[in-house]
Amino acid sequence: MTPLRINLEQEEIPTHWYNVVADMPNPPAPPLGRDGLPVSPEAMGAIFPGPILEQEMSAERWIAIPEEVRQIYAQWRPAPLCRALGLERALGTPAKIFFKYEGGSPAGSHKPNSAVPQAYFNKLAGTKRLTTETGAGQWGSSIAYAGQMFGLPVRVFMVNVSYQQKPFRRSMMQTWGAEVFASPTNLTNAGRSALAADPNSQGSLGLAISEAVEEAAADAGTCYTLGSVLNHVLLHQTVIGLEAKKQFDKIGLYPDIIFGPCGGGSSFGGIAFPFLADKAAGDKRATNLRCVAVEPTSCPTLTKGAYAYDYGDVSGYTPIMRMYTLGHDFMPPGIHAGGLRYHGDSPLVSQLLHEGKLEAMAVPQVATFEAGVQFARAEGIIPAPESCHAIRAAIDEALRCKVTGEAKTILFCLTGHGHFDMASYDKYFSGQLEDFDYPEAAIVESLKHLPKVG
Amino acid sequence: MTPLRINLEQEEIPTHWYNVVADMPNPPAPPLGRDGLPVSPEAMGAIFPGPILEQEMSAERWIAIPEEVRQIYAQWRPAPLCRALGLERALGTPAKIFFKYEGGSPAGSHKPNSAVPQAYFNKLAGTKRLTTETGAGQWGSSIAYAGQMFGLPVRVFMVNVSYQQKPFRRSMMQTWGAEVFASPTNLTNAGRSALAADPNSQGSLGLAISEAVEEAAADAGTCYTLGSVLNHVLLHQTVIGLEAKKQFDKIGLYPDIIFGPCGGGSSFGGIAFPFLADKAAGDKRATNLRCVAVEPTSCPTLTKGAYAYDYGDVSGYTPIMRMYTLGHDFMPPGIHAGGLRYHGDSPLVSQLLHEGKLEAMAVPQVATFEAGVQFARAEGIIPAPESCHAIRAAIDEALRCKVTGEAKTILFCLTGHGHFDMASYDKYFSGQLEDFDYPEAAIVESLKHLPKVG
Repeated sequence: MTPLRINLEQEEIPTHWYNVVADMPNPPAPPLGRDGLPVSPEAMGAIFPGPILEQEMSAERWIAIPEEVRQIYAQWRPAPLCRALGLERALGTPAKIFFKYEGGSPAGSHKPNSAVPQAYFNKLAGTKRLTTETGAGQWGSSIAYAGQMFGLPVRVFMVNVSYQQKPFRRSMMQTWGAEVFASPTNLTNAGRSALAADPNSQGSLGLAISEAVEEAAADAGTCYTLGSVLNHVLLHQTVIGLEAKKQFDKIGLYPDIIFGPCGGGSSFGGIAFPFLADKAAGDKRATNLRCVAVEPTSCPTLTKGAYAYDYGDVSGYTPIMRMYTLGHDFMPPGIHAGGLRYHGDSPLVSQLLHEGKLEAMAVPQVATFEAGVQFARAEGIIPAPESCHAIRAAIDEALRCKVTGEAKTILFCLTGHGHFDMASYDKYFSGQLEDFDYPEAAIVESLKHLPKVG
Repeated sequence: MTPLRINLEQEEIPTHWYNVVADMPNPPAPPLGRDGLPVSPEAMGAIFPGPILEQEMSAERWIAIPEEVRQIYAQWRPAPLCRALGLERALGTPAKIFFKYEGGSPAGSHKPNSAVPQAYFNKLAGTKRLTTETGAGQWGSSIAYAGQMFGLPVRVFMVNVSYQQKPFRRSMMQTWGAEVFASPTNLTNAGRSALAADPNSQGSLGLAISEAVEEAAADAGTCYTLGSVLNHVLLHQTVIGLEAKKQFDKIGLYPDIIFGPCGGGSSFGGIAFPFLADKAAGDKRATNLRCVAVEPTSCPTLTKGAYAYDYGDVSGYTPIMRMYTLGHDFMPPGIHAGGLRYHGDSPLVSQLLHEGKLEAMAVPQVATFEAGVQFARAEGIIPAPESCHAIRAAIDEALRCKVTGEAKTILFCLTGHGHFDMASYDKYFSGQLEDFDYPEAAIVESLKHLPKVG
């Protein structure tokens, strides 16, 4: 029998997160306020608690994971590193394919890796209530779970169209005791404006962010939580890559190439950054390692966006951040079945890509589902549509290896399972999914609305 | 940090299943044919392949697990033994609560433990195609997955009402390449008769079994698979308890009481039987161990049924088996949200219960969901409604310990996750679920139709 899962003991859950900022060639571009100056900690303090802000701006290489967080992580971590032997055989490739499986968390994805510490640090700082937004529902369910673990009430603004289409993600959040509202709501100015303009508004992620931020800013006891993009979120997600390194050590291997699906960038940073630490430290095994962010051609932030300052939300409530962006009023096309629909990308991932430390590629929708089904039929696990992007890239790399005869070690992040996405699979099977290259002209138009800086 | 998951290495996946027949005080009551005589292997051979029949009738204590099966098991096994520390704290109990979590399998439940070897032995015996029935969809999706792993086409007869209400279980089966039909169909005599009587028939599990058995019997290359009840299915499920014993050994503990949800009896036998082996071997730790099957008050097979010979299906195609039964034309009430709705119970579980080696209890529906939600809020995992029956019993036991001050070690089997059952949780939250004690008079009436024996 070939071992397919490399497990770690519970004591091997990382004790520290890795902060890539410490190893970046240049300091990160700071978020700016409306005045064009770096945002003060006081301004950010209206929506984030102190310990989270410290992490957001820290340049320390290692940041301790509190024991209380490790104790909750232990409900599902360490996550297994899995050998995709069935897929290798189906492809007939000499490559060794591994995936880090994050779908075993209570919420079914990597998102609780950050939701749990965010809830913990908020509780520690005296926060009484959390707000957040969610699109497909993975982040909302994760923070609902995490809030419950620390006795913090959670209010979720769920994009209306998802609220209607994914009722079971809503049920999941309610099982963990969260309040869930279809956004836009009548609870905020942003929501009321949107409803005044269109009483049947389907909502958008940017708008839901505006609602959640507005509520947090208006109430001293309420803080806002975000599931991706920001530095502290990527920091928390490094448990993925740190565990993967220990697991590869156990079997004496090291990856040649890493693929991660990339929307806001948190799971990609989570698996890739700890390996960049090896590069920075001069580890010879990492010299030729490639880290590749994989995004949809329908939302090609890294591959077709501008590297520029832009807002994180639709209403312009957030500071502006330097990142690859399609423009904050970019509307993802409705045909796209998975997540990864945010207009921007993590400033850290963006800067490292811009400076040549990372790579990016885009894959079309139909081929990602094709890859997801091929994976499910060889490995059993039905992957989330987001994860299928990385699977597509990994399969293509393995097929290249078949041609060249290279026995590369390929690693990808399987960020979640698809149990709440079967309607998308149904659409794929019935031929209702189409490919969509986001048009250059639309991107050029959207980028005209970027905020002016300097 | 208190370790919450006791893992095993992949090499520790059991090499043999445990056959409780070897340790039963009396030989199992044989299945009988329409002539009242024990069914011949030849008759059974029309629907089951040789190796499966051998296991069905074996008295060997240990039966080797083929390496090919262990290799597929390795996609999710060994399953973790988890400490429910959050639940213990929420209850304020001195008891230690452990659960064996089987929801990490591709199909999300314990069912693949038997689906994989059934597909393997069928492939080995030259079977060309598999048929089966499924109600809620857990077994159908498991055999779809297992068939795919060994390249065997699978046809699933899915109870019509479930086919309509649980479209995503169907999508899951299709993702693994299976054909799924709403039963009754026009493909079989049993189905055509049912449709002639009622063109809008909602179907039933007993009827779907009749369809699947009829197809298998009519075609030499087609065999039938069953997800519970039969001896070989319980045999395969013993990997659950065998792993749990190794995991308890690792931490130097032994359970005082084991709870398993019980419908057809396979997961209950799977976790309980290996501990009965300890009892049979005179292991002192097991002297006072109690093994308790937990069923719904709405389908009280073990607690209110008769211990008698009965058919396994509605149409009377199957041999008759001696088991606790509510009568083969028992119709489970529509209000019951979970599985565990089969009219009979495993002959092995039934006989061991009848001879006092096991215990049984029934719990009402609303209290099971209440327990499931309490568990989800303390432990993260959202349990399948079936599993909530065992959780209810475990919580009640832990609360008794709180009163008596006993620090008992409680083990229960968490047979699956509830990701495809959120509609039931919605009903619970909206107050639409009701308790239902199946009326004694209805049971008496149903039992009048038991086949005459001897």
